[in-house]
Amino acid sequence: MKVSVLFSGGKDSALAAILLEPLFEVELVTCTFSLLSNGSIGSEAAEKLEMRHRIVCLENSILDDAYQIIVQDGFPKNALNYIHLSALKTLAEEKNTKFIADGVRRDDRVPRLNNSQIRSLEDKYSISYISPLGGYGRSAVNALVDKHLLIHEDKSENLAKADYEAELREKIACEIGGDAVKELFPPHVQSRIIERIK
Amino acid sequence: MKVSVLFSGGKDSALAAILLEPLFEVELVTCTFSLLSNGSIGSEAAEKLEMRHRIVCLENSILDDAYQIIVQDGFPKNALNYIHLSALKTLAEEKNTKFIADGVRRDDRVPRLNNSQIRSLEDKYSISYISPLGGYGRSAVNALVDKHLLIHEDKSENLAKADYEAELREKIACEIGGDAVKELFPPHVQSRIIERIK
Repeated sequence: MKVSVLFSGGKDSALAAILLEPLFEVELVTCTFSLLSNGSIGSEAAEKLEMRHRIVCLENSILDDAYQIIVQDGFPKNALNYIHLSALKTLAEEKNTKFIADGVRRDDRVPRLNNSQIRSLEDKYSISYISPLGGYGRSAVNALVDKHLLIHEDKSENLAKADYEAELREKIACEIGGDAVKELFPPHVQSRIIERIK
Repeated sequence: MKVSVLFSGGKDSALAAILLEPLFEVELVTCTFSLLSNGSIGSEAAEKLEMRHRIVCLENSILDDAYQIIVQDGFPKNALNYIHLSALKTLAEEKNTKFIADGVRRDDRVPRLNNSQIRSLEDKYSISYISPLGGYGRSAVNALVDKHLLIHEDKSENLAKADYEAELREKIACEIGGDAVKELFPPHVQSRIIERIK
């Protein structure tokens, strides 16, 4: 059974893939709007996990819509959730897809699908959506990450990572400047994997 | 890292244990009020999984309280959730426990802990609570069960299974008769594992 796992090169999506590996044929997928080098960052991180990887280019209209949402809202939650759901839909509508997965944890608020979005995604595309970390809290995730991954953590603006946030930040910086990015995104720490511990 | 997994001998707790097995030292735990032969049913099922197993006797006051709750409510949800949380607390307060787990799925409504119960359980006992199937829906669980387990499914009243529901039904039958059991529990299908497919 093949599963396509949305992969940012961060610890959560890496750990999700490690949890799935014994039971599925795992394929990591980095989605990108080709605005930054997300594809190659994802590809390098996937090599460190020794897992199959491919890059999927998302339609630019998704980033345009997300930009409109974040500028209107004044905060990133809905825009990031919109990109996340759009990326899952893009995978779900590919031929022969049966299982798609992501790195969403039990306590995550962004990105997160609500119950009706999950039901709609699974029913419309006849796929199963899995969040391997959906029943894991922060302490369990950290314990497993410590055991299986060497990671680098830093503030999101300092870290090259293959996630939508980086490209949405870049889009905002291009459109209305770097100050707007600081206003719209609260500072937070992100991670990138350096090595898999075996 | 050792994890204690609440184990009823049904497909969900068995699959939860299978998911944890590559990453943890798994110990299956069947909790019982010693009213039925739950302990030995759990033990036999654990042998089929080739996993370590032990039986924990829960305090009878928990069953008494659950009985009061279901009779007052007229439906089983709160009573079963109460026993489930009590069983998790019993494991959590054991010495040297770091990780406890169960077979709760994404779509389960009973048993299920709410967010504040999870936070309280983890903080009070300094443990991590994991639901390995918390991010898996019905279709993904069924696909994995088909691949890894031979199971027998039947209506709950016909199936000998090492879960709290069986003992709560027995308690009600003893106290106020079998008709009350039928009134209080809606008919539903449960599972018991026959064999692990390797």
